[in-house]
Amino acid sequence: MSSPTPEFLSRLVSIVGAEGHSTDPEVLAPHLVEWRGRWRGNTPILLLPKTTDEVSRIVAACHDAGVGIVPQGGNTGLQGGQIPGAHGNEVLLTLSRMNRVRSVDPIDNSMVVEAGMTLLAVQQAAAEHDRLFPLSLGAEGTCQIGGNLATNAGGIHVVRYGNARSLVLGLEVVLPDGRVWDGLRALRKDNTGIDLKNLFVGSEGTLGIITAAVLKLFPRHRQVSTVFAAVPSIEAAVALLGHTQHRVEDAVLAFELLPHSALELVTRHIPGTVNPLGEVSPFYVLFDLTAPRALAESVIESALENGIVTDATIADSPSKGQALWRIRESLPDAQKNEGASIKHDVSVAVSRIPAYVAEAEKQIRALIPDCRPVTFGHLGDGNLHLCVSRPVAMRDADFLAMRDPVNHIVHDLAHEAGGSISAEHGIGIGKREEIRRYKSAVELELNTRIKQALDPRGIMNPGKGVG
Amino acid sequence: MSSPTPEFLSRLVSIVGAEGHSTDPEVLAPHLVEWRGRWRGNTPILLLPKTTDEVSRIVAACHDAGVGIVPQGGNTGLQGGQIPGAHGNEVLLTLSRMNRVRSVDPIDNSMVVEAGMTLLAVQQAAAEHDRLFPLSLGAEGTCQIGGNLATNAGGIHVVRYGNARSLVLGLEVVLPDGRVWDGLRALRKDNTGIDLKNLFVGSEGTLGIITAAVLKLFPRHRQVSTVFAAVPSIEAAVALLGHTQHRVEDAVLAFELLPHSALELVTRHIPGTVNPLGEVSPFYVLFDLTAPRALAESVIESALENGIVTDATIADSPSKGQALWRIRESLPDAQKNEGASIKHDVSVAVSRIPAYVAEAEKQIRALIPDCRPVTFGHLGDGNLHLCVSRPVAMRDADFLAMRDPVNHIVHDLAHEAGGSISAEHGIGIGKREEIRRYKSAVELELNTRIKQALDPRGIMNPGKGVG
Repeated sequence: MSSPTPEFLSRLVSIVGAEGHSTDPEVLAPHLVEWRGRWRGNTPILLLPKTTDEVSRIVAACHDAGVGIVPQGGNTGLQGGQIPGAHGNEVLLTLSRMNRVRSVDPIDNSMVVEAGMTLLAVQQAAAEHDRLFPLSLGAEGTCQIGGNLATNAGGIHVVRYGNARSLVLGLEVVLPDGRVWDGLRALRKDNTGIDLKNLFVGSEGTLGIITAAVLKLFPRHRQVSTVFAAVPSIEAAVALLGHTQHRVEDAVLAFELLPHSALELVTRHIPGTVNPLGEVSPFYVLFDLTAPRALAESVIESALENGIVTDATIADSPSKGQALWRIRESLPDAQKNEGASIKHDVSVAVSRIPAYVAEAEKQIRALIPDCRPVTFGHLGDGNLHLCVSRPVAMRDADFLAMRDPVNHIVHDLAHEAGGSISAEHGIGIGKREEIRRYKSAVELELNTRIKQALDPRGIMNPGKGVG
Repeated sequence: MSSPTPEFLSRLVSIVGAEGHSTDPEVLAPHLVEWRGRWRGNTPILLLPKTTDEVSRIVAACHDAGVGIVPQGGNTGLQGGQIPGAHGNEVLLTLSRMNRVRSVDPIDNSMVVEAGMTLLAVQQAAAEHDRLFPLSLGAEGTCQIGGNLATNAGGIHVVRYGNARSLVLGLEVVLPDGRVWDGLRALRKDNTGIDLKNLFVGSEGTLGIITAAVLKLFPRHRQVSTVFAAVPSIEAAVALLGHTQHRVEDAVLAFELLPHSALELVTRHIPGTVNPLGEVSPFYVLFDLTAPRALAESVIESALENGIVTDATIADSPSKGQALWRIRESLPDAQKNEGASIKHDVSVAVSRIPAYVAEAEKQIRALIPDCRPVTFGHLGDGNLHLCVSRPVAMRDADFLAMRDPVNHIVHDLAHEAGGSISAEHGIGIGKREEIRRYKSAVELELNTRIKQALDPRGIMNPGKGVG
């Protein structure tokens, strides 16, 4: 990679104009640090192009000069993929000014949006046309749809609708040489060549910059029943998932696991939250069904008879449903109050979750006695966040010094179980070394070959991802 | 490409043994012709490996010798992608002896199968575990799951479950140098690098040979209501789709359009078929809802009130539902009785279908007066088969001589409407030239770069697909 010269930076400024860039340290500052402070970088310039053509000319200039370019969405990523290198030789680009809905086709159930729209704005644009865009995650008010696609975001509705990858019909991408691939097709079926769309989705900005997308829309749900159920074990939670799917088919919209330790953290630290049930249980499941309350009741009644559920409540109003979801959503904030934590984002086949969690927590407790594992998340997808809080009596720094061995326990066991060490958060900077422990040589080489085929100069988000 | 020498062929025989190959012309014959006779090829040897290791060693030998290799599934493809070249320099490989279920995990709703299983056998294996594998298409008794994945097969349930691409969690692939990529992961979420799986799905055997796959399973449907409805226009059929989706959400399992000309062909040529309705209508819609009959009735009642449906029948038993589906399924056979036809497989956004069909049929009728367009198919996905029968008084050969100009009308209009000229049947040999009229230079180049990155010697299914 070359260092950007003053002449090169002037060329970029001439493309985007005065409003399309900044070199002001105060403006740059929030873009140069991952939001929890784990990764920091530098850049000579922040570019805010307004059109695909401007993005194209910026990337062409970087290509000509051999200067690295880092695309950043809403800067909510958890692996640092959106942060430029510390050396300050890479230009930073964000599409927040490319935030228009280009078109909505309610009959086709599709919508063309620019990459800089926040996920919330995308959801709202769909709702204005009486349609649903189902991607939903904690950062939705801040993250951008371009970043969601570049990282193949997950969230709470994957069990029903799949990852971000499943929600996109077409893409517009600025390639690493500045040319534009116009793949903005609103087609449910198109078998004319290699699947380019899925190459860019999830590539973390290492193969090109997604500037716009055709998104799938869905009918809005006529009714959602939210259930909070006590289950005696993770085995029972898995059995409840199958029991429910068998009865309601695709009506399972979300299916989240919470251990009692999670409920305890939330009710201790988040004002206004309480245990929705009369009893204390080792585990709870929070799930949404797009089904009438009567069907949710019959699911729970039969689960109570089977003993896979010991108690449950069904929200009988949207506000009560939201109160139940607030327990789940405020868990990361609640856990912050307990000092340092080491977090993970693993997936295994749903059937392997109980044995996996038991063994991982056992080994971590053996390594760090009195540490406090809180294992929660998207049970319906086999994706759990195994977040370990430090022992009450241990200093943060001493605990965080154990990060690598804790990671290795969690990741080695996931790998042995055929799982993934990054289910929804990607590789970024954070897992770039770690992933090399687990990927086969063949798979690493395939990643590298594709990276080299599409970005032979290596200017797209250098040092991120696998390839 | 090199010609295979006797020594090279001996090397292949030593890998697969006596039962794993054939050079008998009678055995080879059915593998060397596309089933309608449109494409014919030659080969010095048919290989029938029994294990992934044998496939790996075969491909490594081809790679070393620079000999082309053609993978063939059930030989039901419609674009000739499975037929070797006429020169006879390519070896032909089929995985019909690799037809085992490796494992089924009903709790995880996943199943590992070898590529040579027929689609029907896969469906049956899922059913034995009280699960559904929803891919369904006319050739399901013969086609192989490996071919379905290599071509990203569609069929009648795409509106609910997506293409074959959406139904696979992981793959095992023998790469063009003979190494094996073990991507047999049963994960709903895995963001660790470039999406390799989707690169191989739909690549028509040009990037590697799929030897096994992890498939997604689903709950079996508790009830299916089949509806046959008369609609006054294609606009009304599109409106009925939206009307139905709004009321039943994802319960639309299939949604097919038939013009009256199709019903007439079927009732004329297929014994035992009748118009299920009392009236003659310009168009009909045949659809399945995984919903109680009462819900199907309420959908139809409101559609009758709106005037988007003029008459309808709901099957009140599985056998009556099958009788309705027989009309749709026997249409290709029925049309054969009317002499030569020119067929297409296009998709456009659902909202654009009415205008597209009207204009395409108008231009074709202007080109060939008295020709008989029969436009039917998967309206729910925007995928129609525009199949034009010759005028009654025209000779087959004279009509087929018009294939190119007819194709150009149908494809040019689809392209102008943002559509695809091959929605579900792929490129193969048949559309390899035609696709170059429509793909941008950038998109063609991306296909070529990826092909070269993965198969630099060009031995995998030479002369097929886009790249």
